[in-house]
Amino acid sequence: MQVRDMGEFGLIARLMGEAKARDGVVVAIGDDAAVVEVTLGYRVVFTCDCMVEDVHFLRKAPGYDIGYKLMASNISDIAAMGGRPRYGVVTLITPADEEVAWLEDIYTGIKACAAQYGCQVVGGDTSRGPKVVLSVALLGEVLPGREMLRSGAQPGDLVCISGPLGASHAGLQVELGRIDASAACASEARLRHFRPVVPVDLALALGELGCRCANDISDGLASEAQEIAVASRVGVELDSALLPIAPEAQTIALALGEKPEDYALYGGEEYALLFCLPPSLAAEVCVRYPAVRFIGRVTEGDGVLLLHQGERERLRAAYTHFD
Amino acid sequence: MQVRDMGEFGLIARLMGEAKARDGVVVAIGDDAAVVEVTLGYRVVFTCDCMVEDVHFLRKAPGYDIGYKLMASNISDIAAMGGRPRYGVVTLITPADEEVAWLEDIYTGIKACAAQYGCQVVGGDTSRGPKVVLSVALLGEVLPGREMLRSGAQPGDLVCISGPLGASHAGLQVELGRIDASAACASEARLRHFRPVVPVDLALALGELGCRCANDISDGLASEAQEIAVASRVGVELDSALLPIAPEAQTIALALGEKPEDYALYGGEEYALLFCLPPSLAAEVCVRYPAVRFIGRVTEGDGVLLLHQGERERLRAAYTHFD
Repeated sequence: MQVRDMGEFGLIARLMGEAKARDGVVVAIGDDAAVVEVTLGYRVVFTCDCMVEDVHFLRKAPGYDIGYKLMASNISDIAAMGGRPRYGVVTLITPADEEVAWLEDIYTGIKACAAQYGCQVVGGDTSRGPKVVLSVALLGEVLPGREMLRSGAQPGDLVCISGPLGASHAGLQVELGRIDASAACASEARLRHFRPVVPVDLALALGELGCRCANDISDGLASEAQEIAVASRVGVELDSALLPIAPEAQTIALALGEKPEDYALYGGEEYALLFCLPPSLAAEVCVRYPAVRFIGRVTEGDGVLLLHQGERERLRAAYTHFD
Repeated sequence: MQVRDMGEFGLIARLMGEAKARDGVVVAIGDDAAVVEVTLGYRVVFTCDCMVEDVHFLRKAPGYDIGYKLMASNISDIAAMGGRPRYGVVTLITPADEEVAWLEDIYTGIKACAAQYGCQVVGGDTSRGPKVVLSVALLGEVLPGREMLRSGAQPGDLVCISGPLGASHAGLQVELGRIDASAACASEARLRHFRPVVPVDLALALGELGCRCANDISDGLASEAQEIAVASRVGVELDSALLPIAPEAQTIALALGEKPEDYALYGGEEYALLFCLPPSLAAEVCVRYPAVRFIGRVTEGDGVLLLHQGERERLRAAYTHFD
């Protein structure tokens, strides 16, 4: 069945399913806007993130994966601010001849990821357009003072990462057909690309412990470290030997004759958390969260330097959408 | 200059301008997400609305108008729930060869409309794509119990409209070239189409006075009255003789040999407020807001009937995006 066979209201009903008002949702889908509760005394964290056919995904890609990843990227933005993700709205642009079943899969993925992190889809908008475009806007909440900002790094802080790097970029190589899907690590890498695990609990714990600087690394580690350096007016020194490279990145990069370290530094669409905090706190965090790795330090300089076998190298800029 | 000449970060900086954190904005543009304050004890009203090139606007159309109208449509959704609009995020999809100046005009329009209603743009996302797509997600706030829902109509209520109808649809005929731009009422009608006035103050007053049912008429009066009838499980009877038809609709419909009443009933993209309330309250509202008109009543039936010279006619369904 195609979109035009259902009409706009039928499509919305099909995609959204039963609108259950629960967990703080006063009014869900089916009115001019949703009405939701924010915990008394909390601030609201607010973000949006989009995905475009032929740019972020191909039409043949499994809808569930597309939707899951889109919601994960938004949840990651909320978590990287120290917030708890709570409510989302979804904008869908689609051609009238699009298959409803595929769009349903996308929405199932969106809602599954939302549920995974205790979050609900409460509304949205649909329109026709030449290609499928999806945008999610997400609300979270944070206690005043617990925000983790790009501008919160201080010289002397340690730089940490929530877990292994580069697997998402390795998965992209599988998706692009550069690596055979049956090769070693291929299916694991693909999963890391499409079903990112967002360290929401770690992020909330960091905010509570007193960490004041975090960034997700959706544009790649190098780029996001650079953002922290600029916003905090500090330098960031990363130690090549300390970067935790995911086994999928190691295997697939080597199979393609590429450098695993580049996957870790420049591979985007990854939702690990990069954060900076005083050494005393960092020690506590590393004990409580064994996947966390210390990868460098904050200095009084500027920009991002990579220490590599005793040499210091200034890191190059990273991916942007229009270059 | 084209988008690809600036790169993504340059484009964002240019479009968003200086990120001023004021009026409840703790963290604005430039981090993973925005952080904003909601007034203590209020609920959050949350909506999104999009516009697509060649569907909602043409590339040649003035950017300012496109942006202004997009934000107005979101503000209208918040107001129709009884909420005060506060914070927005903007998703922009654009080809890399798009003119930056036109996109800047769109953002200027978005921000101008936001400022008009005491609202701020606090973040967003950009990506490339084959056509320009814009989506705004907007947050407002409402005191618990003051929400105005589609499901809030009661038999015996009067049905009211915030002001004259049909001017936006008349303006669309000008935009489509069916009416010469120098014809009588043409420029006024065009302005009503692209710079809708959203009755936010009226909506807030209605919520405070005890009105519990409202809907904006962005899909046209007939369609939105139908939504109230279905959600409230009531009938709605509109009186043709009482519909306040805008002079622009009157003039342009007649010039095209069409029925002004059809413009009023089915012309969408109009941001008047349709609301239902007990007769005693309605009288008070009509005195305080002279543009408000009583146009019908809520009954125990179902669907929407139009009274026309003593005859009752059941209204047909309205515009949807995929039919």
